[in-house]
Amino acid sequence: MPQRKLKIACAGLGRMGARHALNFANRTPRADLVAAYTPDPKEKAWAATALPDTTVYTDYDEMLKHPGLEAVIVATVTTVHAEQAIKAIEANLHVLCEKPLSTTVAISQSVVDAAQKKPHLKVLCGFSRRFDASYRQAYERMDQGAIGRASVFRSQTCDKLDPSGFFVAYAEFSGGIFVDCNIHDIDLALWYFGQDSVVKSVVAMGITAVQPDLRLHNDVDNGVGIVEFWGGKIAYFYSSRMMAAGQHDMTEIIGTEGKLSVNANPVGTLVEMHEPQGVRREIPHDYYGRFEHAFVTEANEFTAACLDDTTLPFKLSGAVQAVQIGCALQESLNSGLKINFDEAGRRIENPRL
Amino acid sequence: MPQRKLKIACAGLGRMGARHALNFANRTPRADLVAAYTPDPKEKAWAATALPDTTVYTDYDEMLKHPGLEAVIVATVTTVHAEQAIKAIEANLHVLCEKPLSTTVAISQSVVDAAQKKPHLKVLCGFSRRFDASYRQAYERMDQGAIGRASVFRSQTCDKLDPSGFFVAYAEFSGGIFVDCNIHDIDLALWYFGQDSVVKSVVAMGITAVQPDLRLHNDVDNGVGIVEFWGGKIAYFYSSRMMAAGQHDMTEIIGTEGKLSVNANPVGTLVEMHEPQGVRREIPHDYYGRFEHAFVTEANEFTAACLDDTTLPFKLSGAVQAVQIGCALQESLNSGLKINFDEAGRRIENPRL
Amino acid sequence: MPQRKLKIACAGLGRMGARHALNFANRTPRADLVAAYTPDPKEKAWAATALPDTTVYTDYDEMLKHPGLEAVIVATVTTVHAEQAIKAIEANLHVLCEKPLSTTVAISQSVVDAAQKKPHLKVLCGFSRRFDASYRQAYERMDQGAIGRASVFRSQTCDKLDPSGFFVAYAEFSGGIFVDCNIHDIDLALWYFGQDSVVKSVVAMGITAVQPDLRLHNDVDNGVGIVEFWGGKIAYFYSSRMMAAGQHDMTEIIGTEGKLSVNANPVGTLVEMHEPQGVRREIPHDYYGRFEHAFVTEANEFTAACLDDTTLPFKLSGAVQAVQIGCALQESLNSGLKINFDEAGRRIENPRL
Amino acid sequence: MPQRKLKIACAGLGRMGARHALNFANRTPRADLVAAYTPDPKEKAWAATALPDTTVYTDYDEMLKHPGLEAVIVATVTTVHAEQAIKAIEANLHVLCEKPLSTTVAISQSVVDAAQKKPHLKVLCGFSRRFDASYRQAYERMDQGAIGRASVFRSQTCDKLDPSGFFVAYAEFSGGIFVDCNIHDIDLALWYFGQDSVVKSVVAMGITAVQPDLRLHNDVDNGVGIVEFWGGKIAYFYSSRMMAAGQHDMTEIIGTEGKLSVNANPVGTLVEMHEPQGVRREIPHDYYGRFEHAFVTEANEFTAACLDDTTLPFKLSGAVQAVQIGCALQESLNSGLKINFDEAGRRIENPRL
Repeated sequence: MPQRKLKIACAGLGRMGARHALNFANRTPRADLVAAYTPDPKEKAWAATALPDTTVYTDYDEMLKHPGLEAVIVATVTTVHAEQAIKAIEANLHVLCEKPLSTTVAISQSVVDAAQKKPHLKVLCGFSRRFDASYRQAYERMDQGAIGRASVFRSQTCDKLDPSGFFVAYAEFSGGIFVDCNIHDIDLALWYFGQDSVVKSVVAMGITAVQPDLRLHNDVDNGVGIVEFWGGKIAYFYSSRMMAAGQHDMTEIIGTEGKLSVNANPVGTLVEMHEPQGVRREIPHDYYGRFEHAFVTEANEFTAACLDDTTLPFKLSGAVQAVQIGCALQESLNSGLKINFDEAGRRIENPRL
Repeated sequence: MPQRKLKIACAGLGRMGARHALNFANRTPRADLVAAYTPDPKEKAWAATALPDTTVYTDYDEMLKHPGLEAVIVATVTTVHAEQAIKAIEANLHVLCEKPLSTTVAISQSVVDAAQKKPHLKVLCGFSRRFDASYRQAYERMDQGAIGRASVFRSQTCDKLDPSGFFVAYAEFSGGIFVDCNIHDIDLALWYFGQDSVVKSVVAMGITAVQPDLRLHNDVDNGVGIVEFWGGKIAYFYSSRMMAAGQHDMTEIIGTEGKLSVNANPVGTLVEMHEPQGVRREIPHDYYGRFEHAFVTEANEFTAACLDDTTLPFKLSGAVQAVQIGCALQESLNSGLKINFDEAGRRIENPRL
Repeated sequence: MPQRKLKIACAGLGRMGARHALNFANRTPRADLVAAYTPDPKEKAWAATALPDTTVYTDYDEMLKHPGLEAVIVATVTTVHAEQAIKAIEANLHVLCEKPLSTTVAISQSVVDAAQKKPHLKVLCGFSRRFDASYRQAYERMDQGAIGRASVFRSQTCDKLDPSGFFVAYAEFSGGIFVDCNIHDIDLALWYFGQDSVVKSVVAMGITAVQPDLRLHNDVDNGVGIVEFWGGKIAYFYSSRMMAAGQHDMTEIIGTEGKLSVNANPVGTLVEMHEPQGVRREIPHDYYGRFEHAFVTEANEFTAACLDDTTLPFKLSGAVQAVQIGCALQESLNSGLKINFDEAGRRIENPRL
Repeated sequence: MPQRKLKIACAGLGRMGARHALNFANRTPRADLVAAYTPDPKEKAWAATALPDTTVYTDYDEMLKHPGLEAVIVATVTTVHAEQAIKAIEANLHVLCEKPLSTTVAISQSVVDAAQKKPHLKVLCGFSRRFDASYRQAYERMDQGAIGRASVFRSQTCDKLDPSGFFVAYAEFSGGIFVDCNIHDIDLALWYFGQDSVVKSVVAMGITAVQPDLRLHNDVDNGVGIVEFWGGKIAYFYSSRMMAAGQHDMTEIIGTEGKLSVNANPVGTLVEMHEPQGVRREIPHDYYGRFEHAFVTEANEFTAACLDDTTLPFKLSGAVQAVQIGCALQESLNSGLKINFDEAGRRIENPRL
C-alpha cells in the first residue's frame, strides 16, 4: 500500500526558498511539494524545470487554497514571514517558517499567539542548527552529564566575505547582524542553557571594517555581544561578514566538568592538500555548505510531525525569546549602553543611577 | 508535467541491499523502487513496512519480469553477483552490481562480456568511493595538475574490530581481505593512476592478530601489499579488521609536486569533547557511516545515466582489473612469493631463476 | 677566547621563580646565574641541589650587592614586583620583571618612571607569549599584510581546573582574573593592534561556577570582557579556571582579508590514541607546558640585549597599558557598568546621562 | 660547589655536526664542548665565532688527545663513522655516534665488538627519535597496555623535495634510502616490537620519480618496504625525497585493542592561516625542525649517563639489527626478490624452489 504523503507548499523561491523546495520535492520521501509561490518571473521559470511536479502561484493567498494542501514553508523575505505564517495558520495549515519570525518582538509574538489558538497545528521556526547531527550529539552528551553544569556558552556565525556589497542593501530589512546572524547562536544558547533561562543583562559592540555603509542601517559587519543569565550563566557571541576562508560557525559549551566544541576546527571535505606553501584545506563557502544535511533533516522531521501528529523538537515560543535577545543586543550596539533585566525578565531602566 | 522515473528493482535486502533499497526508494527522486527480491522471510517482513510502495519477490527470475522494470541493483551475496547481473543484462535491464563482480577474474570477466553485447545498457560496479565528494575533489585537484605526476599511492580500508567472529564465517566466500576490503583501494589506484596502468609486480603479507581461525579460509585480519606498475608508479595497501576506534579508510596520492590526502585525520561529527583525559572525538563505526552520502550520489547518478542515456563515470572493465590485482595479492599472501608481470601484463613464472 | 657571560640573579624561587632560575642556569648559554634570593627554607634547600653554582640569599638587598651582578629577574609574589624592580633599577641593574608589574596602574607606572631615569638599563616585563614562536609567526604574517587590516581580536587564557581551592586564596592578591590571566591577552591585543591603540570602552561580566568563594575577593572563575578601541577595533577576552582537559590559551587575529589563529586546535605531543571510545589526544596541563620554550627564548633574548646593548622587543610602558585595561575590566565586572573613554584616553563619567 | 662537567669533543662540523656541537656547547648544562674536529676551513672559521670556548683540530687523532677529554660525538660522513667510533672507544672515550654506524652490517658489528670490550664506556648510536617526547609517550602508553598486543607497525620518513640534486651525489655513500632514511623507522619498529624480534621476510620496491640519476647508485627517491617478523608481526615503511610541504615523518603502532599514531597530522607552529584559498598551516622543512628538541634531550641524557654511569636508554646492538634490515630492504629493492629468514634469523636461499 503506497504511503500517505504530506501535501506541502513553499512560499518564496529565492536563495533559501529554492533549497527548501528542492529538499521537500526530492529529499523528503513522505512529502509532496504540490505548490509554490513566487512573484518573480525568473524564479517561476526556474521552477518549471526544477520542480516539474509543483504548481507555481504568483499569489500567496491563491496558493493557500491549493486543493488538499496541508502545510506551508514560509521562506520569503523576513518582513513578510509573520503575516504569511499567520495566514497559513488561520487556513489550518501546518507551518515551517524560516527564521527569524520577524525582526521585532511584538510581531514575532503575534505568530506564537496565532499558533496557540490552533494547538493541533505544527508550527516550527526554522532554526536549522537544531537539526544538525553535531549540535545534537553535543546536546546529548551534555544531557548525559558529560560536562557537569553548562555555565559558559560561546558561539559565532561568521560568513565568508562577500565584496559585492549585498549585505549593505540586505541590512535595511535584516534587523541587524545580531538578529540576522547571531539569532542562531542565541537560539542555541537557549537550547543548551534551557528555554526557561532569564536574561540578566545584555551588552554589544561592533565595527564596520569592510562595509562602512552598514552604519546607514544601524548595522555593523563585526559584532561582539555578551548575554548574562540569572543563575550564573553567560553566553557570548561573535558575528562577522568578512571571513576570508569561508563560513565558520562554531560553538563551545563550557561546563563545570568538561567542554563540548562544535566545529572548532572547520573542515570542508576530507581532502588535505600538501603544497609547497604548507598543508591546506578548504572549508564550506556558505551556511548551506555547512548545514545542508540539517535542512534535509528539518524537512523530514517536520513532515513526520505533521503526518504522525508527534511533538516538534522545540517550542515556537523560543523564537520570540531569541528575537528579544537579538534586538536587545542590536539596541546595545547602537546606544552604547548595557541593558539590564530583573529576575522576572523585566527591563530595568537607568541602572544604579 | 510530472517527471519520468526509472523503475528499478533491488536484489538482496541484507545489510547493503536494504540500504540501497532505501536510498532508491527515498533519496533518489528520479527513481521508483518498484520491486525487490529476497528469499529471507525476515527481510520480506522488514520490506513490508520500510518499502510500502515496493513489490517483494522471493524468486529473482520472477522479479526480473516485473512490469515495466528498467534496471536492477544486485546487492546479494558476492557468490551470486555475476550470475544475477548477467541474467539482468540478458533481460535488457540496466545493472548496478555491488562490488566485487566476483571473487575470480574469469567470472568477473563474464559480466563484462555480457555487458559488451548490450552496449545500450548501463552496467555499473558499485565502487562507492568513486562517488564520494572527498575522493572526487582529490581527483579533480590532481587532474588540474596540483601534485605534478602522481607516483605513489597509499590507501587503506580498516574496519572497526568486531569481536563477534562474524568475519571468520564471512571469509569463506569473501575472496579474502585483499579482494573484499582492498578492492576499493585498488580501484582507487586505477582511477588516480589511470585505467590503462599495467601491473609489474605484486607482493603481500599478512597476519591473524585477533582471529586465528581466518587461516582456515586462507585469510588474515591484517594485510599489507605492494603493487608496482610499469612506468614508475607504486601503490601500497593496508587492510585491517581490528581498528578500536572505528572505520578508518584513508588514501594519499603522492605526486612529484604535491600530495593529496583523503581522511588522514578521521572525524565523525564536528563535536570534540574536552574531558579530564584530554580532547576526544568519535569517528564513524562502519563504512556506511563514512560513505553514506556516496551511496546516495551513486544511486542518483546511476539513475540519471539510465534515464538520460549518459555515460557512467567509469568503465565496467576496471572492476575486472581490480579483482585481478586483489586475487594476485591474496595469492602472494598465501604463497609467500612475489608475482611478476611483463609489460603486456602477462604473468612471468619463476622470476630470475 | 671564552665568551663573556651576564651575571644575573633571580629573586623568588617559587613556581615561576624556580623555572626562571633553571632556565638562566642551564638553558641560557650567555648567562651565569650567580645569585638567587628566597626567604623560604625549602626553596633554599632545593637550590642547594638544583643550582649548585648559585649563591642563595635570604635578603633581597644583600643579593643586589652580589659582586659583579649585572641583572635581576624579579619572580616573587606580585605584591612586591614593583618595589624590587625599582630597587634593582636604582642599583643600576638590568631587570626582567614577571608580569604584572603591579595590580594597580599607579604602582606599575612607578616602575616605568624609575626605568626612564636609567635609559641605559634593559627593563623588561615578562610577557612570555611575546617570545612564543607561534605568536611571533602570526605577528610576522600580519605584518607582511596577510590579513589586511587587523580589526577583531579574540584571546583566551583558560587554566585547567584545580579542585584544591588554591585560586581562592590566590585571588586575594592576584588583582582578579582579568589582571592575572587576561593580562597576557590584553598585552597581545596591544601588540597586534599597535601599542598606540586608545581604549574607547570596556565592559566585563563573570560568574563563579566552581569556586563561589572567589566573590569574597571580588573575583570570578570565568570572565568575559570586551574592549573597544578608537579607530574601529574590538578585542574580546575570555578567561577561565575550570578547563577539564588542560590549559587552553588561544588567540585569533581577524583582519579585513584573512584571519590568523594561534592554538585553535590544542595539542600536547604529536601522539593520538585510537581507543574504543574514539580518538583522543592530551593537551598541556598548565601554562608552562604550553609556553616552556617561550620562557627559554625570553631568557636568552633578555641576556643578549643586556650584553650587546640591543633594543628589547617591546616597550615597558605597554605593561602599564595592559594593567590599566585589566583593572578597567575588573572594575566593570564588579560594578556592572560599562566604562567609556574619550579619544585622548580620558575616562568619561556617567555616559549619556 | 660548582658541578662537574663532561669534557666532550665533536668530530665533524657539517650540517648535523654543527647542530650537535651547538647543543653540547649551549644547551647541555652538564657538558663542556672542549674540542672539535673538522678538516674544512669554512667549518673551522664558523667554529671560531660560534664555539668560542672550543679548541678546533684538523686532525681527528690529535683531537682524541685533548687534555682531559672524556667523550666524543661522531658526526662526520657515514663512511668514517665506524673507524672514528672505534678509535675513540680504544682511547677509552664515551661515544655518541650518528646513525648509521655504517652502511654495512659487518662494519657496524665491528663497532659493537669494540664497545663490548670496554663495558665501562657509554656507546650510543644516535637514533634521535628514541629521545622524542611523542615517541616516548607512545611507547609508554603501549607499555601500559593501551593497545593490547602491538601487531602492525607503519612508519615513514619523508623529506621535503630538494630540487638541487644534492641527494644524487649523497646517494653514493648513504647506503640507499632504506639505510639512510628508513633506518629510523626500522629502529622504531625494533623498539616497539622488542629488540628480540626476528625477521621472517623482507621485500621492497621503489621508483625514481624526480631524480632518475639515483639509479646510478642503486637508489630511488621513493621506496616502500615490508618486513615480516616471526611471531605474527608486520612492519611496513615508506620513504620519500619529494614531499612538497615539508618533512613528514609519521608512525602508527597498531595493536589488538587500539592504535597509537605519532604525527599523523603534521603541524609546525600552532598558527593556522585563514585565507581566500582555505585554511593553511606550515609544517617543518626538515628533520631538525621536527626533532630539534629530541637532539637536545639526547645530548643531555648521553651526558648524564657518562657522568653518572647510568644505563643508556637502548642497546648499541640494535643499531646492527637496523642496518641489517635496511640493507636487506635495499637488496630486495635492487634484486626484485623477496628475502626470507628462518626462525633463527638465518637467511634462506631460493625459497620454495
